[in-house]
Amino acid sequence: MREVAVIGIGQTEISEHWDKSLRELAGDAVLKAMANAGLDYFDGLYVGNMMSASANNQQQLGAYIADWVGQKSKEAYRLESACSSGAAAFRAALIAVASGEIDVAVAVGVEKMTDSPSAEITASLATAADADWEVSQGVSFVALNALIMQRYLHEYGWKRSDFANFSINAHANAMHNPYARFHMLITQKQFEEAGVICDPITLLDASPIGDGAAAALLVPVEKLAPLPNKSVIRVAGSGAASDTIAVHARKDPLWLTSAERSSKDAYRQASIDQYSIDFFEYHDAFTIMAALSLEASGFAERGQGPRLALDNEIRKGGKIPVATLGGLKARGHPVGATGMYQIAEVVTQLRGQAGEAQIDGARWGMAQNIGGSGSNIITHILTNAD
Amino acid sequence: MREVAVIGIGQTEISEHWDKSLRELAGDAVLKAMANAGLDYFDGLYVGNMMSASANNQQQLGAYIADWVGQKSKEAYRLESACSSGAAAFRAALIAVASGEIDVAVAVGVEKMTDSPSAEITASLATAADADWEVSQGVSFVALNALIMQRYLHEYGWKRSDFANFSINAHANAMHNPYARFHMLITQKQFEEAGVICDPITLLDASPIGDGAAAALLVPVEKLAPLPNKSVIRVAGSGAASDTIAVHARKDPLWLTSAERSSKDAYRQASIDQYSIDFFEYHDAFTIMAALSLEASGFAERGQGPRLALDNEIRKGGKIPVATLGGLKARGHPVGATGMYQIAEVVTQLRGQAGEAQIDGARWGMAQNIGGSGSNIITHILTNAD
Repeated sequence: MREVAVIGIGQTEISEHWDKSLRELAGDAVLKAMANAGLDYFDGLYVGNMMSASANNQQQLGAYIADWVGQKSKEAYRLESACSSGAAAFRAALIAVASGEIDVAVAVGVEKMTDSPSAEITASLATAADADWEVSQGVSFVALNALIMQRYLHEYGWKRSDFANFSINAHANAMHNPYARFHMLITQKQFEEAGVICDPITLLDASPIGDGAAAALLVPVEKLAPLPNKSVIRVAGSGAASDTIAVHARKDPLWLTSAERSSKDAYRQASIDQYSIDFFEYHDAFTIMAALSLEASGFAERGQGPRLALDNEIRKGGKIPVATLGGLKARGHPVGATGMYQIAEVVTQLRGQAGEAQIDGARWGMAQNIGGSGSNIITHILTNAD
Repeated sequence: MREVAVIGIGQTEISEHWDKSLRELAGDAVLKAMANAGLDYFDGLYVGNMMSASANNQQQLGAYIADWVGQKSKEAYRLESACSSGAAAFRAALIAVASGEIDVAVAVGVEKMTDSPSAEITASLATAADADWEVSQGVSFVALNALIMQRYLHEYGWKRSDFANFSINAHANAMHNPYARFHMLITQKQFEEAGVICDPITLLDASPIGDGAAAALLVPVEKLAPLPNKSVIRVAGSGAASDTIAVHARKDPLWLTSAERSSKDAYRQASIDQYSIDFFEYHDAFTIMAALSLEASGFAERGQGPRLALDNEIRKGGKIPVATLGGLKARGHPVGATGMYQIAEVVTQLRGQAGEAQIDGARWGMAQNIGGSGSNIITHILTNAD
């Protein structure tokens, strides 16, 4: 397989975009990524999106977006694996370029959620859970995460307040991200007093939905020579794994098997281990997922994820900086787009363009995108090292 | 890229499967394909599906089906490009194996439509059209095809009855396909007197929806040696192209640009032209699409597709046998599954296992799957030639 580099990224602000359609959001991100790469075409478009069928009455987003950006004849599909649809699109683009089938791929994640009534969005998000075995019992997606978190607190003896720094750090980092949904600091006290959504998850454990799109343009490294001189950001590792959708069907609901498997595959491909990772854009849809993701990816012992937060090891300068541009918690979580925001953020850091949020000397960045309650996890490692 | 072979196929009957869930249908096809290949595992699962979010309240079908067939840890996604989702899944599986990223891929197309009220299905099918520019005007998916057909009749002087043999041939061929939705012959008179759905399209121009799943298992040719002796069916060509979703936005609404482009790409990869194709599993969702597909793929001059039907050149023994196991018209059109039924049928013919429907000495078979009103077209050429 050919080595692949990301040479362009584009993002829209995550917000309530009442004035922009789904295609405008996606188009903005794609055109920005193309301009950022200095290319005016692509060979294939891979779209990550979860809920346009219900939220926007629109499918086949591949053709829909390719046409909108003036590339109507190109190969173009949608990839869907619930909230990890963004990373699925990136992986499809990566493999298409690595294989030699095409030379220029664009992966874009897009979601436009805020036009829909919140009850409809809750129902759409529940399609990431098991319709027969979970949703039929009346459980919502946040309820599943609450059950996992409740069990985790019971099993390992943590208090909910021990998770505060996951959210405090995310909000602090988002202050420096112009695309982030929230630009406001939160305190330990606010975290502890936040309103409960589904016990023990409160508003400040949960990431906000939003409208947004993020894109990346990929080319084979071997074809970079004719392009203007660029810092080459290589995709060094890519791993993907699935698990049961129904949480109760897992032997251990407190261990993200597919995070472990996909991160190990990515480490192996990149010929590094977790200690080489300079920062980690994880999938903190809920604080419990932050903890579980850190553990399964090798950054904490089983049951000890919150310790990294309590010890401030997740901030810039800590052992493993996370959510360096706000994470899902504060950058926002437009579900099918999130995986591509993570990729754009990793590239931004590796280019040294993260401003106040810059991780000094960052060479290896990791992004991990989670679909469902851990049922589809995709991990990518990018690097600016030769 | 590595050469890729299909060594296993599996299909379920297309019917109203009130007694089977979405996962059971997909699982049956996947397990049959694995058994047919003599393998009890795969590395990656690629699911083609259009409307499970609305029709079955279920997304992330990758993890959903991988788990059901006992392969829960594997990479697994859904591909969606409306009615060409099946071929999109096959192409993703093909590229994943060709690239070297994985060795054993299963592509499965599945759709379970008949549980839903028909108004909901009509609304779901309309998500393949442009929500902003077409559906907002009240046009349904069949209405778009009717507009195209009306214009075609006007432009080229055909009568609707000239299209009869497309449907008559499909129904005749489906008699020999145990998986087909319909096992009944139709006559010219029945075709001419059929009830109008949307002028000029009648019930016998249109393909029936249904529930069903079809799958194929792909491996690199270079790894075939250790497997039991099999007739090797190679994937010789694969092309994919998109077009505007909105029909009115096309310079020429009577020409399937993306069929032309994707078939030319497939011919080029296979190093053949259309005259080498022994049979063609085309996308006869409506008789007008049968004509347009034949023209854009090089089998008829512009505006002359119906001539092939009138002259009986589309039957076994004719210039270009089509819908050899019933096509969408009579085998049935479970939308996201259709592309994989086409692949399974091409493999069946190339293996010489098509029974009464067998095309004698078939060496090159082509499948073309159309999403939307021609907005996403994917063409595959398979062969049993060395």
